[in-house]
Amino acid sequence: MPSHRLPPSLEPNALSQEVDRFRREGLPFIDLTATNPTRCGFAYPEAEILAALAAPGTLAYHPDPRGSRTAREAVAAWHGQGLDPEDLVLAASTSEAYGWLFKLLCDPGDEVLVPSPSYPLFHWLATLEGVEARPVPALAFGRWQVDFQALEAAAGPRTRAVVVVHPNNPTGQFLTTSEWEGLLAFCAARGLALLVDEVFVDYALEPPADRLGSALGTPAPPCPVFVLSGLSKIAALPQIKLGWVAARGAGARALLEPLTFLADQYLSVSASAQAAAADLLRLAPGIQAGLKARLRRNLAALDAALAGRPALTRAPVEGGWAAVLRIPALEPGEACALRLLREAGVLVHPGHFFDIPGDGHLVVSLLPEPFPEGIERAAALLDARAR
Amino acid sequence: MPSHRLPPSLEPNALSQEVDRFRREGLPFIDLTATNPTRCGFAYPEAEILAALAAPGTLAYHPDPRGSRTAREAVAAWHGQGLDPEDLVLAASTSEAYGWLFKLLCDPGDEVLVPSPSYPLFHWLATLEGVEARPVPALAFGRWQVDFQALEAAAGPRTRAVVVVHPNNPTGQFLTTSEWEGLLAFCAARGLALLVDEVFVDYALEPPADRLGSALGTPAPPCPVFVLSGLSKIAALPQIKLGWVAARGAGARALLEPLTFLADQYLSVSASAQAAAADLLRLAPGIQAGLKARLRRNLAALDAALAGRPALTRAPVEGGWAAVLRIPALEPGEACALRLLREAGVLVHPGHFFDIPGDGHLVVSLLPEPFPEGIERAAALLDARAR
Repeated sequence: MPSHRLPPSLEPNALSQEVDRFRREGLPFIDLTATNPTRCGFAYPEAEILAALAAPGTLAYHPDPRGSRTAREAVAAWHGQGLDPEDLVLAASTSEAYGWLFKLLCDPGDEVLVPSPSYPLFHWLATLEGVEARPVPALAFGRWQVDFQALEAAAGPRTRAVVVVHPNNPTGQFLTTSEWEGLLAFCAARGLALLVDEVFVDYALEPPADRLGSALGTPAPPCPVFVLSGLSKIAALPQIKLGWVAARGAGARALLEPLTFLADQYLSVSASAQAAAADLLRLAPGIQAGLKARLRRNLAALDAALAGRPALTRAPVEGGWAAVLRIPALEPGEACALRLLREAGVLVHPGHFFDIPGDGHLVVSLLPEPFPEGIERAAALLDARAR
Repeated sequence: MPSHRLPPSLEPNALSQEVDRFRREGLPFIDLTATNPTRCGFAYPEAEILAALAAPGTLAYHPDPRGSRTAREAVAAWHGQGLDPEDLVLAASTSEAYGWLFKLLCDPGDEVLVPSPSYPLFHWLATLEGVEARPVPALAFGRWQVDFQALEAAAGPRTRAVVVVHPNNPTGQFLTTSEWEGLLAFCAARGLALLVDEVFVDYALEPPADRLGSALGTPAPPCPVFVLSGLSKIAALPQIKLGWVAARGAGARALLEPLTFLADQYLSVSASAQAAAADLLRLAPGIQAGLKARLRRNLAALDAALAGRPALTRAPVEGGWAAVLRIPALEPGEACALRLLREAGVLVHPGHFFDIPGDGHLVVSLLPEPFPEGIERAAALLDARAR
């Protein structure tokens, strides 16, 4: 019997089963849920990437629990903002970094507050550490906003940390500077740490008012702040397996030593990824440029598909790799996604997959190359149903 | 405040502090605790390793929660014994694999039984998962043996698994076939899983009676058995970050699915390590040959240093990379190690670092190139004190 940390059922949902059937039977479909950038037809500087990975530095192993000093210097230089390489801890991924931070901050049975809507990872990353992830629903007036009343209501005596994603995935909203200040005050007043996931911070699309830049560029926070990022999104290289945590703010230094102890028990980052970090970060702006062009093109294609179909709208896409469609809630979200797959040959995610309440939302990735055709097909079908 | 999973103090012990001082002040010493093979002067096939890591397969990311099928096929072929690639889950390291298995099998507050003496990793890997690692002291008559009475005494209603290391580190004993059968019966009777760490299984040195080969070659076990290994020891390439778990025995298949779910939350293995796995395993026998020659040479040097010094003896070295010296217990182990560093310029580990009871044991690594000079210096000083 597996432990109670694991899901009681691992039965795939109806949509996953249908996708498996399409794949098994070789039925074609346009995948508007694809977020693996290495399979979206981008022109990567392949020779440079391979050369970086085969740097001779990879032959000798000098394990440093925080990650090699040279790799941390490269990451610090990438972020700028005076980030000290000594305040960085490298991990194989942000998932691993979350696990470490939950272990660092939480005894089993403690709680963390996580954003909702969100990518459905926090629940499991916390549960697997014996920690409860309490979702804090965002206010959704035009754009999603931090609901400080909901935050107050969710916090209890065993709450240890607040997690925010900046910009959020898949809803794309950045924190505003006033939300940021509110979060700092909230955490400082309760002795909580603030975890800021900035993996998408470089992918800004539409301008919000009063947007916070990186949390690394803010004045010294009054509580411990851990900023997470990694090559997976920064350089669109998820296969390299290099993420990191930057610690700052009041009390962060005292937590860095036990975090380092934690990292030392696993030493998960390959020498190859560490030796390549500086080179790969040098390639990142060029790679990002390709992705950003694609994101803009697909957002324009989305707007073209929605134009003249007033039943279909979209939320603002402040940043990130996804867009949220608002549709008439005529049927359960999963039934709608199944219909789109079967009748239009287009795979999308129902909003509830990301904890978006109700049946009136679909989520699409803005990365796929055949996005324009896929979104037009999906919009045509949705529009016909709405009439 | 860090959680209670972390050690209450991270103050380095007196020996670590003295080593730091030696390094800081540039004082020379021979490190007989060195176990990082990439820094022990072995001739690695460097060009082949770098070429393997830069295989074009590393450019596209096809995440499979168990690890790429080709990498799993290479690992299965390495182990032979009819191992099915579908019964393998890849991880960045055996440390990560232990964490996954503890999560899989144990709710917070559950217990695992771990060997003692042992490398001091299990306590923290378990504690960080909210799991209690209960040490089971081995019987030490000539060679270390599984103490089934101690195992019975340590098991309780919250025990979920037994961990064994085959051969053990640093004491080197392999399991015998009768111990193996006893462990299977013990686990099957109590509904426990058996975790078998075989990272050193290829490094046999001195013959024990009735040695078990790999746990993968045994008849179908009556309980779930998880065998752990990885490139760190098999190919002496700790920097690649590729380990794995093979699941077999009654009930193992039912645990593979939740284990796969767990691996899917982290996806920690780089595409590079997966694409290189087959090539690196092809290089492993040659790399192992270099290490085995060194281990034999250093074991002979150890025996030469002990010859004519009857106060100093050693335990049998059935396998692995370390040897255990028996010395007169004239002072606490740490004081003895400090004296050897200061007066002989030789760094060794006191036995208690590995939970060897009393002050009559020192542990040395058999990997270092300057081992013969180091062990002669250490033996001369220890022998002079014993007279």
